[in-house]
Amino acid sequence: ERPLPWGAGYAEVINAEKSEFNEDQAACCQLSIRRREPGLEDEEWLILCSTQFLTGYYWALFDGHGGPEAAIIASNYLHYCIKQKLEEVVGGITEARPPMHLSGRCVCDSDPQFVEEKHIQAQDLVVGALENAFQECDEVMGQEMEATNQTGGCTALAAVYFEGKMYVANAGDSRAILVLKDEVVPMSCEFTPETERQRLQHLAFLFPKLLDGEFTRFEFPRRLKGDDVGQKVLYRDYFMEGWGYKTVEKADLKYPLVHGQGKQARLLGTLAVSRGLGDHQLKVIDTNIEVKPFLSCIPKVNVFDLALHDIKEDDVLIMATDGLWDVLCNKEVAHMVRSFLAENRTDPDRFSELAKCLVCRARGKKRGHQWLLDESHEASYDDISVFVIPLHKRDEH
Amino acid sequence: ERPLPWGAGYAEVINAEKSEFNEDQAACCQLSIRRREPGLEDEEWLILCSTQFLTGYYWALFDGHGGPEAAIIASNYLHYCIKQKLEEVVGGITEARPPMHLSGRCVCDSDPQFVEEKHIQAQDLVVGALENAFQECDEVMGQEMEATNQTGGCTALAAVYFEGKMYVANAGDSRAILVLKDEVVPMSCEFTPETERQRLQHLAFLFPKLLDGEFTRFEFPRRLKGDDVGQKVLYRDYFMEGWGYKTVEKADLKYPLVHGQGKQARLLGTLAVSRGLGDHQLKVIDTNIEVKPFLSCIPKVNVFDLALHDIKEDDVLIMATDGLWDVLCNKEVAHMVRSFLAENRTDPDRFSELAKCLVCRARGKKRGHQWLLDESHEASYDDISVFVIPLHKRDEH
Repeated sequence: ERPLPWGAGYAEVINAEKSEFNEDQAACCQLSIRRREPGLEDEEWLILCSTQFLTGYYWALFDGHGGPEAAIIASNYLHYCIKQKLEEVVGGITEARPPMHLSGRCVCDSDPQFVEEKHIQAQDLVVGALENAFQECDEVMGQEMEATNQTGGCTALAAVYFEGKMYVANAGDSRAILVLKDEVVPMSCEFTPETERQRLQHLAFLFPKLLDGEFTRFEFPRRLKGDDVGQKVLYRDYFMEGWGYKTVEKADLKYPLVHGQGKQARLLGTLAVSRGLGDHQLKVIDTNIEVKPFLSCIPKVNVFDLALHDIKEDDVLIMATDGLWDVLCNKEVAHMVRSFLAENRTDPDRFSELAKCLVCRARGKKRGHQWLLDESHEASYDDISVFVIPLHKRDEH
Repeated sequence: ERPLPWGAGYAEVINAEKSEFNEDQAACCQLSIRRREPGLEDEEWLILCSTQFLTGYYWALFDGHGGPEAAIIASNYLHYCIKQKLEEVVGGITEARPPMHLSGRCVCDSDPQFVEEKHIQAQDLVVGALENAFQECDEVMGQEMEATNQTGGCTALAAVYFEGKMYVANAGDSRAILVLKDEVVPMSCEFTPETERQRLQHLAFLFPKLLDGEFTRFEFPRRLKGDDVGQKVLYRDYFMEGWGYKTVEKADLKYPLVHGQGKQARLLGTLAVSRGLGDHQLKVIDTNIEVKPFLSCIPKVNVFDLALHDIKEDDVLIMATDGLWDVLCNKEVAHMVRSFLAENRTDPDRFSELAKCLVCRARGKKRGHQWLLDESHEASYDDISVFVIPLHKRDEH
């Protein structure tokens, strides 16, 4: 085991009874973001500037489906896309406020005022770079996977520490939380067919051809059957957070665009997530219906400014795939984190040990053919990957 | 002055120097929601049931643009649409949990379980009814206004008290807040070209023809000009909450889909709101570009369950058009509400007096040609309408 950058801890477990391959993949590295003054040649730059690099740190988890390929490719590419997109805007990041023009040249005297009125800050450029990097990565993966005849997709959860702030970008159903001394701060939310129902239904409303007459965009509490035709049953359309009653027509008996409850919820009967990377070729089985138009590769980015908080030695960012969160809630994880770190103050590997401890807890114990969390609860049946990233005095590393 | 139902208070002021007509309109009434058992004839029903009506209460504000016509029509129709949509689902509202089938007939034994798994409650039917009512009202208004050759649109903010809960449905930039003893609870959020930028840009991305080559969907800190071409400038696309840099092309010099800051922000250079009723015929001046496809008539509905709170005598719901909120923030309004009501405990008209007091405060005082809030702040230049709705012991009325 090599130590991870930043002294972060990592652990994973393959659910051996489910599949041969680990569909979870992890990546972490230092990001060296090269600053280039426009108009300066490389050599001039090296001579003039001693601080020609800004250093960032990157950790990411990818949960694959339809095989581990997409997760493996994403784990090889995303950090590079992020580095590239950060380098494209780094000239604007190092200013107190990003300039209207990346060149710094002021075309219009009141440009700084326009930027200020829009409240644009350096951190908005990092957020924009992450959003663009996910999109770029998805495009590259599409080409790569088509060229090499690989299929599948993956979720992506990436954390980037840069210039004193922790950015968490999420597309999928992994989760990151900050466990601080007095507080647990969610740093991501999950994108599933359930949480994105309205977006998915709206797309099907705008482009009905995407469903090719095989699915209904309406949501019902259960799959309808012949007996329901003519009856008024509970339903929701794309514009509704509430519920209404709809007289059932024959077309409503089609399979629903979003169907199932909780972990069983599926998009087009096919996918359990609504955001992620890959799946460019994915079609609904036995049809010509493409799933990709309904998927989004855009992450939601949350920012945590470490300078605004009194960061303690045991404060950590926990990142994990759904294998962990399926069986442990934020509160349970936070409790385990706090008590483990309090009891293991001096262990130099305590963050790795904590990651292992979390993974083992979620995997549970084998009893006969079953893996159990405790007497009454089943353990996770999924791959489980966990990062534990300490936040304290990181700039000294 | 007739007393309003529920002892609510109302006040309005026309900004006489801005226009001749009050573009704000208000409405309030009791809603008698008729319960019909399926299969029962009207007369049977009247004989069998003494409680054949459920009583609700309704208050609404409409802020018109392009003339007062749409606001007037909406104030005449919306309560009726709401009554109708509530009556369509009332059979499901009176159950502890709405039944899968409105008829109450159970097609499938596990239907109640499906409904429970989806966490569908009676209040979701009211939310759905309000969402459907706004859409219905918009459709009726489109027909009515076309037939009578009227134009314009309006925002809509409606509060409905029904079965112990206060529902606030909002489409536009009016606002409702609950001022409780120890707490101020926002009951709506504003829908403007700025708050809905991503939705609007996404629609333009999906259907570029909607912009007819006259607008750009990108956001820039200011309108670009010839000098910017070839430069990298700050921009945002539909998928970005952050900002990036984009090399300016000639097409980027077009007028932006969403442009301007704060109160000056406009959709297609035309409208200051992105949700509301009407505007079916509205085109961008001197073009064939329709505004309606970008507008949404769907409200966001917030629910407040009075039974879960210890409602005090001075607790009120404040509803007001943007004329009030442009110059007074939630905190200032809450302070005025609390001190006014504390000082006027015995006045039977205190809620009306409070509404007047809020309107007068926002209108300010005339000094020469200017209306001033105080020495250093301008007063509202807009029409101002305010409802003050007491929450205490309402069921006894």
